[in-house]
Amino acid sequence: MPALITLITDFGTRDSYVAQVKGVLLRMGPPDLRIVDLGHEIAPQNVREGAYFMRSVLPHFPAGTIHLAVVDPGVGSARRAIAAETSGQLVLGPDNGLLGFVLVSGARVHGIEHAAAAPASSTFHARDVFAPAAARLACGETIAALGAKVSDPVVLSWPAPVLAPDAVRGEIVHVDRFGNLISNIERAHLSSRSAARVVLLGRDLGPLRDHYAQSGPGELLALFGSDGLLEVAARDASAGAITGAGVGSPLTVEL
Amino acid sequence: MPALITLITDFGTRDSYVAQVKGVLLRMGPPDLRIVDLGHEIAPQNVREGAYFMRSVLPHFPAGTIHLAVVDPGVGSARRAIAAETSGQLVLGPDNGLLGFVLVSGARVHGIEHAAAAPASSTFHARDVFAPAAARLACGETIAALGAKVSDPVVLSWPAPVLAPDAVRGEIVHVDRFGNLISNIERAHLSSRSAARVVLLGRDLGPLRDHYAQSGPGELLALFGSDGLLEVAARDASAGAITGAGVGSPLTVEL
Amino acid sequence: MPALITLITDFGTRDSYVAQVKGVLLRMGPPDLRIVDLGHEIAPQNVREGAYFMRSVLPHFPAGTIHLAVVDPGVGSARRAIAAETSGQLVLGPDNGLLGFVLVSGARVHGIEHAAAAPASSTFHARDVFAPAAARLACGETIAALGAKVSDPVVLSWPAPVLAPDAVRGEIVHVDRFGNLISNIERAHLSSRSAARVVLLGRDLGPLRDHYAQSGPGELLALFGSDGLLEVAARDASAGAITGAGVGSPLTVEL
Repeated sequence: MPALITLITDFGTRDSYVAQVKGVLLRMGPPDLRIVDLGHEIAPQNVREGAYFMRSVLPHFPAGTIHLAVVDPGVGSARRAIAAETSGQLVLGPDNGLLGFVLVSGARVHGIEHAAAAPASSTFHARDVFAPAAARLACGETIAALGAKVSDPVVLSWPAPVLAPDAVRGEIVHVDRFGNLISNIERAHLSSRSAARVVLLGRDLGPLRDHYAQSGPGELLALFGSDGLLEVAARDASAGAITGAGVGSPLTVEL
Repeated sequence: MPALITLITDFGTRDSYVAQVKGVLLRMGPPDLRIVDLGHEIAPQNVREGAYFMRSVLPHFPAGTIHLAVVDPGVGSARRAIAAETSGQLVLGPDNGLLGFVLVSGARVHGIEHAAAAPASSTFHARDVFAPAAARLACGETIAALGAKVSDPVVLSWPAPVLAPDAVRGEIVHVDRFGNLISNIERAHLSSRSAARVVLLGRDLGPLRDHYAQSGPGELLALFGSDGLLEVAARDASAGAITGAGVGSPLTVEL
Repeated sequence: MPALITLITDFGTRDSYVAQVKGVLLRMGPPDLRIVDLGHEIAPQNVREGAYFMRSVLPHFPAGTIHLAVVDPGVGSARRAIAAETSGQLVLGPDNGLLGFVLVSGARVHGIEHAAAAPASSTFHARDVFAPAAARLACGETIAALGAKVSDPVVLSWPAPVLAPDAVRGEIVHVDRFGNLISNIERAHLSSRSAARVVLLGRDLGPLRDHYAQSGPGELLALFGSDGLLEVAARDASAGAITGAGVGSPLTVEL
């Protein structure tokens, strides 16, 4: 398979930052390299949103994929640059939590110390540090060749819902562009118990539904979404705008 | 030619939905698959805008291209998923009219019934139904292998202008990001008659022009655009903002 | 190396214009063509912003890359279409200054006269003139085959800062999406003299810094950015919004 590098950043595409990174990858990578844009609209410097993005994406990619992720408010400071092998894929990024949901136990992590352009700028490590390192991995080098083993990368703990006898109490972890409110409650948390009703910020959303079309236009509904997480949506409307809920808002399933 | 899959969606790129679809395509498709983004900013759930996009794009692509299109407000309901062969290209999408302008008479249409991920989510068929099907087509399968023949797909009728002795009466069918107002009037509708003047919402736009630079800054003008359709533009300005016209507004060519 | 065509436009991705260009490239180019999006969000019809984008990008790409750039307010008028070879790469675009920063002395420039679709529209030369020409270059043709030599392309002069005994007086040349204000002052302009302080619109920004993290949240700072140009930034904030400065605002380094 020709090497595959994906890009996840908060750079947007109005400026030339993503373009410069692509140039370095194409100049230093193998001649048949494929570059795939995954998203450049992570909210600026929102590391946690980027981490959630990574978590949603990796399970769907083939083994051997190289993911270059950069949301990097601390660029130029002492924060480390790392590369890791996790579930058969390779990820590169700043060691600031961006990779914190995908560095599952057993992931091998190395620093990126030997791959930087000379001289590297202090403000654009995506181009000067991460892209050269990703290009070397695409050419067949190992992450161990990039730098010393890192035993303590920044990991994030996925918030666990509270499992009570009569309810599962979770929280919103992401709001998507349609205004869908995605929580940390999984189907397994309900065991085989049936949900009496779902409550968001004191608002009764009724029973669980199976798909969007089961509600009327503008009506709120709760259903298990495509990542297996309970989400609150509104048909042809924004559940976030209707309810005022956001990341961290409590969501309860009464059993 | 290495297989080619294009993507047209209303998903935007802030969330990871497009990225997840790409992962499935790369995981299940042939190793040298090429993915080409055509547009992810179709107005959310605006099936007709997506259908217009498809109509504009297909004539320019090579035979054998696979187009995966998803604008899908009815996802999870009983609406069918279809794949079709039209003008030597393959298109996949929900059977809700999104493919309605490109399913020309003679197009072969099949349901997508045998290609879904197991279990498919009820909210994300782009990833769980259409991407696996597109990957199988890219590997050389036929649309007939995906499901039963569909004889009654949803088709859209392109609005025909009224041809009167002294005028051609059409309407605006699309407004682009520059504010250009694109109508359903083609050059052939004028036969060889010359246009005396063009009138939009009672506003006289003068005679037909040949290119944008023939007007002054901010001045409205009417000309045949790049799709062969009569459009109203304003040099260095938005004709939509100036006139208040939108999709459905009447446009008349007086002969 | 499989042929590589990059795209830089002000078309956005809501409409199908970029998609149509890609179709023509894939239909007319070599079967293993790679298309790489560099940016479609150049401010509409802002030729100078596009020229700055080109200048930032080209140094990072491999020899042989073909760049198709279109910001073209004069499309359909008498402005020429050109293709050029510069620093081992090929660039195509309207002769309106868009390529004006990368047409370094010694660049070979030819008109694009023999490659257009027949008939070419008067409003969409990206699809009907530049894409067919780029596809021919990707198939191995030379720019000389596209048209006659052009000896007087539109070039832009990069504004030079004023070097005084006690100060370097420059100006802002670009504002990026983070609100960073990028100037025309390079490190070499300071020779080995040390900067006492940096002044923007009468506001004292203190001494030069090395990286963003050296300032507090929301605090302005001046540092040499990733293109080697002095820039004014604000940690986790927009320097443009804080200062009201924009392209053309004076920036002074007192020595």
